Amino acid sequence: MKSIRTDLALEAREVLQEQNQFHIPGVRVDEEEKDGVKISRVHIISPLGEEKLGKPQGNYITLEAMDIKNRDPEYQENISSLLAQELGKLMNLNKDSVTLIVGLGNWNITPDSLGPKVVGRVLVTRHIFEYIPDQVDERIRSVCAVAPGVLGITGIETGEIIMGIVQRIKPDFVIAIDALASRKTDRIGTTIQIADTGINPGSGIGNKRMGINKDTLGVPTIAIGVPTVVYAHTIGRDCLQLMIDEFKNQAGPISSFYQTLERMDETQLDIMVQQVVSQELGDMVVTPKETDLMIDYIADILADGLDLALHENMSLEDVKHFLN
Amino acid sequence: MKSIRTDLALEAREVLQEQNQFHIPGVRVDEEEKDGVKISRVHIISPLGEEKLGKPQGNYITLEAMDIKNRDPEYQENISSLLAQELGKLMNLNKDSVTLIVGLGNWNITPDSLGPKVVGRVLVTRHIFEYIPDQVDERIRSVCAVAPGVLGITGIETGEIIMGIVQRIKPDFVIAIDALASRKTDRIGTTIQIADTGINPGSGIGNKRMGINKDTLGVPTIAIGVPTVVYAHTIGRDCLQLMIDEFKNQAGPISSFYQTLERMDETQLDIMVQQVVSQELGDMVVTPKETDLMIDYIADILADGLDLALHENMSLEDVKHFLN
Amino acid sequence: MKSIRTDLALEAREVLQEQNQFHIPGVRVDEEEKDGVKISRVHIISPLGEEKLGKPQGNYITLEAMDIKNRDPEYQENISSLLAQELGKLMNLNKDSVTLIVGLGNWNITPDSLGPKVVGRVLVTRHIFEYIPDQVDERIRSVCAVAPGVLGITGIETGEIIMGIVQRIKPDFVIAIDALASRKTDRIGTTIQIADTGINPGSGIGNKRMGINKDTLGVPTIAIGVPTVVYAHTIGRDCLQLMIDEFKNQAGPISSFYQTLERMDETQLDIMVQQVVSQELGDMVVTPKETDLMIDYIADILADGLDLALHENMSLEDVKHFLN
Amino acid sequence: MKSIRTDLALEAREVLQEQNQFHIPGVRVDEEEKDGVKISRVHIISPLGEEKLGKPQGNYITLEAMDIKNRDPEYQENISSLLAQELGKLMNLNKDSVTLIVGLGNWNITPDSLGPKVVGRVLVTRHIFEYIPDQVDERIRSVCAVAPGVLGITGIETGEIIMGIVQRIKPDFVIAIDALASRKTDRIGTTIQIADTGINPGSGIGNKRMGINKDTLGVPTIAIGVPTVVYAHTIGRDCLQLMIDEFKNQAGPISSFYQTLERMDETQLDIMVQQVVSQELGDMVVTPKETDLMIDYIADILADGLDLALHENMSLEDVKHFLN
Repeated sequence: MKSIRTDLALEAREVLQEQNQFHIPGVRVDEEEKDGVKISRVHIISPLGEEKLGKPQGNYITLEAMDIKNRDPEYQENISSLLAQELGKLMNLNKDSVTLIVGLGNWNITPDSLGPKVVGRVLVTRHIFEYIPDQVDERIRSVCAVAPGVLGITGIETGEIIMGIVQRIKPDFVIAIDALASRKTDRIGTTIQIADTGINPGSGIGNKRMGINKDTLGVPTIAIGVPTVVYAHTIGRDCLQLMIDEFKNQAGPISSFYQTLERMDETQLDIMVQQVVSQELGDMVVTPKETDLMIDYIADILADGLDLALHENMSLEDVKHFLN
Repeated sequence: MKSIRTDLALEAREVLQEQNQFHIPGVRVDEEEKDGVKISRVHIISPLGEEKLGKPQGNYITLEAMDIKNRDPEYQENISSLLAQELGKLMNLNKDSVTLIVGLGNWNITPDSLGPKVVGRVLVTRHIFEYIPDQVDERIRSVCAVAPGVLGITGIETGEIIMGIVQRIKPDFVIAIDALASRKTDRIGTTIQIADTGINPGSGIGNKRMGINKDTLGVPTIAIGVPTVVYAHTIGRDCLQLMIDEFKNQAGPISSFYQTLERMDETQLDIMVQQVVSQELGDMVVTPKETDLMIDYIADILADGLDLALHENMSLEDVKHFLN
Repeated sequence: MKSIRTDLALEAREVLQEQNQFHIPGVRVDEEEKDGVKISRVHIISPLGEEKLGKPQGNYITLEAMDIKNRDPEYQENISSLLAQELGKLMNLNKDSVTLIVGLGNWNITPDSLGPKVVGRVLVTRHIFEYIPDQVDERIRSVCAVAPGVLGITGIETGEIIMGIVQRIKPDFVIAIDALASRKTDRIGTTIQIADTGINPGSGIGNKRMGINKDTLGVPTIAIGVPTVVYAHTIGRDCLQLMIDEFKNQAGPISSFYQTLERMDETQLDIMVQQVVSQELGDMVVTPKETDLMIDYIADILADGLDLALHENMSLEDVKHFLN
Repeated sequence: MKSIRTDLALEAREVLQEQNQFHIPGVRVDEEEKDGVKISRVHIISPLGEEKLGKPQGNYITLEAMDIKNRDPEYQENISSLLAQELGKLMNLNKDSVTLIVGLGNWNITPDSLGPKVVGRVLVTRHIFEYIPDQVDERIRSVCAVAPGVLGITGIETGEIIMGIVQRIKPDFVIAIDALASRKTDRIGTTIQIADTGINPGSGIGNKRMGINKDTLGVPTIAIGVPTVVYAHTIGRDCLQLMIDEFKNQAGPISSFYQTLERMDETQLDIMVQQVVSQELGDMVVTPKETDLMIDYIADILADGLDLALHENMSLEDVKHFLN
C-alpha cells in the first residue's frame, strides 16, 4: 500500500481488488448510478476494515462524474444536488445548526487552492444571525467559513488554527474542503469524496499532521475532497502495471518475464518502482495543463452543493440572489 | 470630529490644530527627521487626551515618507529600517519571544488587501521551532502569521478568530497590519502608523467591532497601518475648507461670507457638508488609479521592516536567503 | 468645459444644460425607458454640435441602469439584451461578418481592467471558421478578440497595435471596450455608453493619443465604455456646486456670497477650483472600495451583451454551452 | 522520435545518443561550464542535421542551472548575466536597434504564463524614444513588448498578430518568450534554451501553427524558452526505459526479457508505450506542485537577462531604478 499514494477510500479498495481481495472483512460497499453520476459508498465498520484500507472507520461516499469534462450546466447542477443529498444524510441539521466550512490549502498554489476558493464562493450567513437577527430569512441556516492557510505560510498547524476558532464560536458541524491526490488521472477534477471521518494525519496533499476530525475538534466533522493531482511516481507505477498486463497475453521470453513479475508480490514491485522512478520524480505531480480552469469549475460545484445542503428549500437561483 | 474620518492620531491632532488648539492637554508630541522620513510620536497620556483625540491612551508613531513616490530602492530600505527601529522600541523582544502577525482586510478588495499581502511576504519561522528545532538558525525568532479574512466572507468577527488562535498558540506579541483611511490624499501609500494600542472599535476601513488589543487578546498588541484611501466625503469637506481659506484673503461680499463661515463652528460646518455631499458620495473612496501597484510596494516595505525588527542581526539580504 | 473631465456625451450635454443651454444646435437627443433602464441617444449631427459637446459627430447611446446595485440576475440579463439591441442598430451584421473586439486598458490596474476582462469572457469563434470550418454552428458569426495592453507596458501605442492587427485580419467591424471617467459617482459601474465614433484622442482614462476609429482603422468602429472612476478634482468642483445650490436658498451674507458666485462665469469658477483643489488631488480617482467586484460584474454584462449581439438567435444559455 | 515530445534541441540530441548515435552529421556541439551553469551550444549546420534532430538549421544554446532550486540570489544574477551574454552573441545590437519582445502563452494557465509574465516585468522604453526623446538616457535602447494571447482566447493565430505588429512598428529584432515541454522533469524551471531559429510549427506547448521566425516576420527572431512541464506520457516512456536499464543487470528470465526489449527498436517500443499509456494520460502534464512560484522566479531571471542584454552598461541595480 505504501507506494500507492491515494486519498480516496474507493481507490484504496481498488488496490485490494487488484490483488484479488474482493471480500474485505469490515468493509461494506454499495453503489448506484444517478443522473450520470456513479455514487459509491464505502463503509468501514471494524478495526480490521480500518487496517485493510488504511483509513479510519466511517463512511466514505464518492461521486464519480466522468462527464464533467463536457461542462454541461445541467449536469453541473445535478452533481451539486447529489452532493447536497449525500451531505444531508451525514448531517443531522436542524433550524439552529451552525456550520463552519474550512477551506484547507494554499491560495497561491493552483492545485492546492480548491478549499480557499470554495470558501470565497459559499453563502455565508452567520454574521446576519449574530448582528442583524431580524433580517434573517427563514430559509437560511447559520454558516461561516474560513481559509486558515498552510503551515509554510502561517507557521501554525492548520489544525491548531481551526481548533482555536471552533473553541470560540462553537459550531455544530465542521466541513473541511481539501484538494486530494488520486492514483488515476481520470479522477482529477471528476471525483468528489465525502467522508464523515474528517481529515486524518497523512491524508490530503498538504502538510497536515494534526487530525481535523471529531476527536480533535469535539464536533462532527465532514471532509469533502476532490483529486486535483496524481503524484508522478504513481504514474510510473501504473505504467509498469499496464506493461505487465500487456505482456500477459504475449508469448516467448516476454511471457516468462510476466511470470516472473506475477510471482513478485506487490511489495517487491513497489520497492522496485520506488528505487527506479522516485528519485527522478520527487514531488512532481501530474495535472491537466488547464488546472486553473478545472479548479474554478469544481469550486463552483462544491459551493453550490454546500449552499443547497446547508440551507432549507433554497434553489441555486435563490442562492444567487442572496449572494449578490 | 465626526465627519472627519481618519485612522491616524497625527491627523486627529491636526484637526485640533486647525481649530487653533495647539496645546492639547494629555497629549505629548515629538518629531524628528531621519533619512528623508519625518517621524512623529504622539503620546496620549491621560483620559483627557484620549477624549480630545478620540483615540485610546498609548503611543502612536507615524513615519511620513513623502519621497516614496520616487521608488528609490535605497530610500525604500531606509523606511523599512526606521520601521524596524520604532517597532523595536515598542516591543521588548527576547530570544524566546513568539510573535503573531495578523493581516487584517480582504484579499479581493485591492485597497483593503494590504494586511493579507504582508502576511504572504513576511518571514515565518514558528514551524521550524516547533517541528525541526535543531534546524533553527540562532539569528531567527519565532514568528507566525495569519490573514483571517473579513466578516462578510467568513461570517465571523475577525477579533474572534484572532482570539481563538491567540488562546491556542499563546504568542508573546501580536502585530496587526491594516489598511487605513486618512484625511489627506498625500498620505495614501506614504505614511505608516505604528500604535501600541492595537486596533480599536471604529478604526480601520473594514468591519471591525471587537477590539484587537491587549484588553481583548491578553498580550501586547501593536497595530501597523498605512492609509490606502481617503473617504470621498472627506474630499468634499476639504474642498470647502480650501475655498474658505481662499476667500479669507478676498474683499467684498465674499469676505462677509467668510466671516459667516468663520462664525459657524466645526459641528455646523460638518452637518452642512454631510447633508450636501454625503448622500452622493456614500462609501466612495479616493485612491490613486494605480492602487494595485502602490499596495504591492508598501507591502514589501512593511514585510521587510517586520523581518528586520523580529529577528536578530539579520540584514534584508539574509532574509532573502531565508525566504527562498 | 475643460476642468470637467467626462468621457460621456450625456454628461457633456448635462454640463451645457446646467449652464441653461437647453437647445444645443447640431445635437438631437431622444430618451426612453425600458425594463428599468434609461436609454438616452445623443446624436451629434453637425460641426457646431461637435464643437459644443467636444465630441466628434456620431451617435452616442447611453444605458443608465441605476438598479444594477441590487445585483438582480434578471435585471442583469435585461441590460445585456438592451445592449445587444442597441449594438444591433449600429452594426449591419450579415452571415459572414467578422468582428474584432478590442479590450483597452491595463490588466494590472483594477479600474482600468474592464476591457481585458471582457476579452477574457466573450465567445470567440474566428478560429473555428478558419481552422475547422465544418464544425461551425450556423448560429455563430466570426468573432475574435485582443487585449493589446497599454503604452506604459508595451512601449507601443495601442492604436498602432490594433492597426497592425486590423490590416492583417481585415475584420468588418471593430468594437473597442474601455473604462471611462465620468463626472458623477453614481454613474460608476451603472452606465454604459455605446458610440459609433470609436475612441478619439483625449477620451478614455488611459494613455491614447491615436484615434481608434473608422478614420484610422478603415472599418466601422464602435466604442463601448463604462465609467469606473470619477477624477477626484471633479468631486471638488461638484462639492462647490452643491454648496452654491445650497446657499441659494439662504438669507444674509451667504445669500450675497451666492450672488457673487452666480456672477462668476463657469470659467472663472473652474479656474478657482483648479487652483484650489487640483494640486492636492493630482490624478487621484474616486471609486467604490469594491471596484474589483464591480468590474467583474459589469464585464459579465458586457460580454453577455456582445455575445447576444454578434451571433444569431443565441440565448445566453446557448452561449454558456458554447463557452464550456 | 515521435513519441518523445521535446522542445529542446539538447534533448533531441540526447535521444539520438541514447540510440548510440554519437556523431550526428550536420550537428556541431560545444559545452562549457561557468558559475555553476552548464552551457551547451548545439549548432545544426546542414539539412541532414536538421532532419536528424527534427529542428531547423541554426544555433541552440542551452543554459542548465540545476542549482536554481536553492534560490540563491547571487546564482540567480549569474544566470541572468549568462543569458545576457549569450543573447549578445546572437544579436548585433547597435545604438538605434529596436527590439520587440513577444510573450507567448496564456495568462490564465499557470504553466503557460511564462511569456506574458516576462513581458510584464521587462524594462520597456520605446515610448520614451517616440514621445519624449529628450528624456532618453544614453544607456537605454528602444525596447517594446507584447503578450498577444493564445488562439483559444483571441480567435487569431498568434503569428498573425505578431506579423501585424511587426509590419507597423518595424523592429530590428524580435525575441519570443515561451514555455516549453521537456522530456525530463529535472529540466523544468532549470533550463533555458535560446535559439536564433525563432518559434517553428509544432514547437512550444501551446497552439502555434505559423512560424514566428525570420522567414515569416522578415527580421531576425530569437526564441527563449524554459520547460515548465513534461508530458505525462513521456514519463510513462521514461519509466519503461528505467526498468529496462534496471533489468539489464539481472539474471534469469528478466534478463531474457531485457534481450527482447533490446531487440525491439525504438519505434516498436514507442508504439507500445503509446498504446498502453497515452489513452489514459491524454494531455496530462507533469509539473512541480509549486508551479506558480517557479514560473514567477524564472520570469524574473529572464526579464533581468533581457534588460542586461538589450541596454548598454546597465546593472540590474540601474534597471531597478528605471523600472520604478
